[in-house]
Amino acid sequence: MLLHLSVWPDVEAYLKESRGVVIPIGSTEQHGPNGMIGTDAICAEAVAQRVGDAAGAMVGPTLPVGMAVHHMAFAGTMTLRPSTFLALVTDCVHSLAHHGFRQFFFVNGHGGNIAPLRAAFSEIHWERARAGQPELTFAIANWWENEAVGRLSRELFGAAEGSHATPSEVSVTWSLYPHAASSVKPSPAVAPGGGFHGPADYRRRFPDGRIGSDPSLASAEHGERLLKAAVGSIAEQYRQFVACA
Amino acid sequence: MLLHLSVWPDVEAYLKESRGVVIPIGSTEQHGPNGMIGTDAICAEAVAQRVGDAAGAMVGPTLPVGMAVHHMAFAGTMTLRPSTFLALVTDCVHSLAHHGFRQFFFVNGHGGNIAPLRAAFSEIHWERARAGQPELTFAIANWWENEAVGRLSRELFGAAEGSHATPSEVSVTWSLYPHAASSVKPSPAVAPGGGFHGPADYRRRFPDGRIGSDPSLASAEHGERLLKAAVGSIAEQYRQFVACA
Amino acid sequence: MLLHLSVWPDVEAYLKESRGVVIPIGSTEQHGPNGMIGTDAICAEAVAQRVGDAAGAMVGPTLPVGMAVHHMAFAGTMTLRPSTFLALVTDCVHSLAHHGFRQFFFVNGHGGNIAPLRAAFSEIHWERARAGQPELTFAIANWWENEAVGRLSRELFGAAEGSHATPSEVSVTWSLYPHAASSVKPSPAVAPGGGFHGPADYRRRFPDGRIGSDPSLASAEHGERLLKAAVGSIAEQYRQFVACA
Amino acid sequence: MLLHLSVWPDVEAYLKESRGVVIPIGSTEQHGPNGMIGTDAICAEAVAQRVGDAAGAMVGPTLPVGMAVHHMAFAGTMTLRPSTFLALVTDCVHSLAHHGFRQFFFVNGHGGNIAPLRAAFSEIHWERARAGQPELTFAIANWWENEAVGRLSRELFGAAEGSHATPSEVSVTWSLYPHAASSVKPSPAVAPGGGFHGPADYRRRFPDGRIGSDPSLASAEHGERLLKAAVGSIAEQYRQFVACA
Amino acid sequence: MLLHLSVWPDVEAYLKESRGVVIPIGSTEQHGPNGMIGTDAICAEAVAQRVGDAAGAMVGPTLPVGMAVHHMAFAGTMTLRPSTFLALVTDCVHSLAHHGFRQFFFVNGHGGNIAPLRAAFSEIHWERARAGQPELTFAIANWWENEAVGRLSRELFGAAEGSHATPSEVSVTWSLYPHAASSVKPSPAVAPGGGFHGPADYRRRFPDGRIGSDPSLASAEHGERLLKAAVGSIAEQYRQFVACA
Amino acid sequence: MLLHLSVWPDVEAYLKESRGVVIPIGSTEQHGPNGMIGTDAICAEAVAQRVGDAAGAMVGPTLPVGMAVHHMAFAGTMTLRPSTFLALVTDCVHSLAHHGFRQFFFVNGHGGNIAPLRAAFSEIHWERARAGQPELTFAIANWWENEAVGRLSRELFGAAEGSHATPSEVSVTWSLYPHAASSVKPSPAVAPGGGFHGPADYRRRFPDGRIGSDPSLASAEHGERLLKAAVGSIAEQYRQFVACA
Repeated sequence: MLLHLSVWPDVEAYLKESRGVVIPIGSTEQHGPNGMIGTDAICAEAVAQRVGDAAGAMVGPTLPVGMAVHHMAFAGTMTLRPSTFLALVTDCVHSLAHHGFRQFFFVNGHGGNIAPLRAAFSEIHWERARAGQPELTFAIANWWENEAVGRLSRELFGAAEGSHATPSEVSVTWSLYPHAASSVKPSPAVAPGGGFHGPADYRRRFPDGRIGSDPSLASAEHGERLLKAAVGSIAEQYRQFVACA
Repeated sequence: MLLHLSVWPDVEAYLKESRGVVIPIGSTEQHGPNGMIGTDAICAEAVAQRVGDAAGAMVGPTLPVGMAVHHMAFAGTMTLRPSTFLALVTDCVHSLAHHGFRQFFFVNGHGGNIAPLRAAFSEIHWERARAGQPELTFAIANWWENEAVGRLSRELFGAAEGSHATPSEVSVTWSLYPHAASSVKPSPAVAPGGGFHGPADYRRRFPDGRIGSDPSLASAEHGERLLKAAVGSIAEQYRQFVACA
Repeated sequence: MLLHLSVWPDVEAYLKESRGVVIPIGSTEQHGPNGMIGTDAICAEAVAQRVGDAAGAMVGPTLPVGMAVHHMAFAGTMTLRPSTFLALVTDCVHSLAHHGFRQFFFVNGHGGNIAPLRAAFSEIHWERARAGQPELTFAIANWWENEAVGRLSRELFGAAEGSHATPSEVSVTWSLYPHAASSVKPSPAVAPGGGFHGPADYRRRFPDGRIGSDPSLASAEHGERLLKAAVGSIAEQYRQFVACA
Repeated sequence: MLLHLSVWPDVEAYLKESRGVVIPIGSTEQHGPNGMIGTDAICAEAVAQRVGDAAGAMVGPTLPVGMAVHHMAFAGTMTLRPSTFLALVTDCVHSLAHHGFRQFFFVNGHGGNIAPLRAAFSEIHWERARAGQPELTFAIANWWENEAVGRLSRELFGAAEGSHATPSEVSVTWSLYPHAASSVKPSPAVAPGGGFHGPADYRRRFPDGRIGSDPSLASAEHGERLLKAAVGSIAEQYRQFVACA
Repeated sequence: MLLHLSVWPDVEAYLKESRGVVIPIGSTEQHGPNGMIGTDAICAEAVAQRVGDAAGAMVGPTLPVGMAVHHMAFAGTMTLRPSTFLALVTDCVHSLAHHGFRQFFFVNGHGGNIAPLRAAFSEIHWERARAGQPELTFAIANWWENEAVGRLSRELFGAAEGSHATPSEVSVTWSLYPHAASSVKPSPAVAPGGGFHGPADYRRRFPDGRIGSDPSLASAEHGERLLKAAVGSIAEQYRQFVACA
Repeated sequence: MLLHLSVWPDVEAYLKESRGVVIPIGSTEQHGPNGMIGTDAICAEAVAQRVGDAAGAMVGPTLPVGMAVHHMAFAGTMTLRPSTFLALVTDCVHSLAHHGFRQFFFVNGHGGNIAPLRAAFSEIHWERARAGQPELTFAIANWWENEAVGRLSRELFGAAEGSHATPSEVSVTWSLYPHAASSVKPSPAVAPGGGFHGPADYRRRFPDGRIGSDPSLASAEHGERLLKAAVGSIAEQYRQFVACA
């Protein structure tokens, strides 16, 4: 059930049955020479909406811009300041909590969002505790961090998965937008790996934006399988979250 | 050209030809008993993306949550505080300006966004003036506010267009999501009109959320015509904006 | 009844009869080569205080600095950041609401204040809704936007009214401060018109600060008539506002 | 020279001669049973404008609302949060510094403003130091804190001066607004003195709002003498400030 | 009783007896050529902890970084923006008030903290008043501002006490950290005195960081006596504060 | 080299040799029935200062209050809002960067600080990138997360280490403050484990504050060994950080 395709009486009816909501959150940032800038938002949205179908959950709008400061040396990347990110997530949660939602399950497409999401949850917990309001519960499901996706990704790509602009995420976007798939072959095939500091340091270490990955291994077919694995696993996480939280 | 389906070298190449960008901005708010909660974001995105095609413009991600405080007494509505809205728009603009974009054309789906958008533009102008940075230019195109859409809407719906949950916007969403079209017939056919104050006052005056409209007149066919009219008109606005600004 | 000339027991007494308050809000910004920098605050204050007399309303202090970023390339202009403007208006309203005021009627002297005022009202509505506090009502009366003033201004100045540093507002200030009236004759008589972007763009298009106006047509006598017209019209608006809101 | 009665070319001309500006800052707060709510703004404005005349200084608009939290249990008092006060003063200073003002001399009417003014000056110093901008200078002249006013006030009122709603400040307002002078005789004649904590504690200790004062000793004649004493002393302070700073 | 060495059930027990808490607040800023950068935090902590022992008060953690913008032209100085300082103090107070503390006694080591501390107290008073929460009480004890310390300091150092990097504060730090005592002899023996504006102006007037002081007069023995004097005096202030507030 | 025991010329001299600084950051929060409230700050400070000795690094003041919202249902816990935490860390870093420090190595005592620290680093990276300032580098060393401490902790406590109020951290505090060691024996010996949501949920699941730990296994002797292990490991991390970053 997609919030944006629902009418408000639908939401009222839903709230009689459930207090849970799934919120996709992505990022708009470079994903190497052949990965789409919207990769993280596209993946989070696709997984979240299918999880909504599978688990009968309301799915909110996709927040497409996240915390991507470290990618800002590549054209097209957009970022929020962490303080803005905090305010944005806080406002979205307050809005839905005003109507009665209590269990917030973020399907996340970008590692850089994890820290500010956690900070936002704490901000909300403390604000509500001080106001004597009932406590909310929060979960973050990073779509690529579960056993099913991990196993499949290792099987398909092994060490060439890397950690940014991975063949897994590129595959998922190509399965969803096959006409936008790129035929660019990054060079070297496998990008350098390692850590980084700020945006200039990132670009110096990873000149084409990838970290440790060979996204030329990506394919729409792999993407379909990965998407299915993610949805199965995360729908189950969601069911447990609303049951126990 | 959609930013989220582009790779970063595409953006670098685009910036050699143009400094303009189209940003769709919507809202996630009640649209009466048969209008989708995502109406404003859906309309803004559809118009913006087609304008991008027509005018060869880069189109950024859709910002789906806007300033909808006055709709908060209806389940499912989400709102940003105006101060968060300011920070969000400011951050998106700063990000794109960092890469060289200079002309920001917002395709807007929601009247309530106009005031905080203008406030954000002023915030950015002043910040850049103080820092000695080159001035940016901004425009807001409310998709329903142009002669072509106005004429067609009057022809199709006359006074039953109203001002919130209008048959025009509902038609556009049904043309895009025909399976999500609602068969609910609001009663009375034409909703009461008039002004309002805060969210409680709004609900008291407009109990089902509509203002002055009869959205049962909506149809997917009408939506296609309205969308086409909007795109033609706004693509031309964009061309003039990037030429003169 | 002017708040600043009242003693606190007067305010307590007033609140037993009325919950309404008039707040003048202006701007401190260039008004061309012969218009005073305080024009917008002077006009808003004069209209508001006479409206207070006419309608028996409490009139708060004049907020003299507004949102004037676009005039910042002219010496003497002062501006708040929109985010500061939001905080300032919010605090003033919270203070008065703490004592029992519920109906806030802003007499505004500057078009650039409209967007951030609206943003502030939404911020307050949402904050109070979340805290379960009774809803406030707000109105903005731009002193020059009513039929009486519009008719008179067209009669006196026709197309030479323009839109910034207008003969109407200059006339009002000269009727109030005749000794400060300027004898400078701007050249050309009628300033260029049109839109603008940021402060640098504004100065480029309108080198002496006026937009479309010929303020050499101003006179103290015209100012008296305009002031009277504004007060009559806006006092009536205020009466309806407190009766219905 | 009053900024609000000047035209922008006047300001440009002034800046060739001087970098100094006088800014009156007051408060809108209870002043006991017979003192005006605007007392602090009225006094600050009157002193500042006369200092401007005496010293040839540009005088900015009066900021009428200050930091008056401790008076909030009395109807009609308005306060800014200290954080808003910081932002307001910062924005006013940034605006004027943008045009070339460098020496900011605040004529202050309210003790409660001193702490947040100092905080604002530090905020600005640090912001400019980090941006590598030339340093500004600031001074606060509390109109009642100088030898001339102190001597005269002791002579006129002795210990009945007290520390809030003093006969001195009430006298100044009556000299300026004789028709608004109150004939209320507070009881007891001399209010209790001492310290206080928050607004509830303040009201408990000082039920009619005065601290240690007998404002029934006030008169317009005394007010004229006090005003003259303040202006003479503070004009001299201003001259030294712009000469040395 | 030191909060950081207590376990939480101790705090629960303490709150049954007392609602008071002592919070040391210092600064990390230059103290001339032979004074430690941590002087203000070291002195505040030592006094506060001994006051806690003497008066049976709970002593919170030392806030080591304060408002030291004016010292920022000397290496090693750290400062908070006043707005951050406000937020920090506000959060610490809100946390402890959440558990039931009501009387906040700050032992302060730095004059520059006074203004932002007062601003913070007002911010909290207003926030709690608006939320209908019971009022808190606050006190600031500047460790060097009491009769006992003043008398002893005059006896020991006379006019060479000065006002920054004073022999008194240097003595206290040497009594606590004798091995860190510096043998540098500042030149000239007594530093120049006077006022200052921003950080650059400060450094210009006081090239080695001292104001009016001769810290070569400092000794650990003097420090012990000063510390004892301060503790005796401030413990008594605390007792009165919790008894009366 | 401790910043607070240094004089400013020492810092100038240090900066000619190194751009690195170690900053201890802790938390003031409950640590179960026999763990000190200051545990995290105490451990971070002790490790950081010894790392400074071992690696010749400048060590800044300990930030004693962190992000501890989830512990707020236990008396004595203090927390910053994540937004305040961001501002505090940002200001500390800006201050030191103003003097020339470029490499910031946080020795952290509390898991809850990690997310807001990372958010702060991103905020700073983006702010400096936009201002064209040289990039800083950051590292977080959680004192308990390294092979040496992990091995020793498993050897000493096995599964009874748990994850909050662990025998490891309690041991370290007892080695430093033997007189403050508690003889309370928590019951059950090993606390329940698992995840949690907000502060109320935390208290419900972990009624005495511990998670999965048996701190009665703690001893000062174990603490000394753990401290030594941590210092050895983290001093080496610091050396690599300043060499490579």
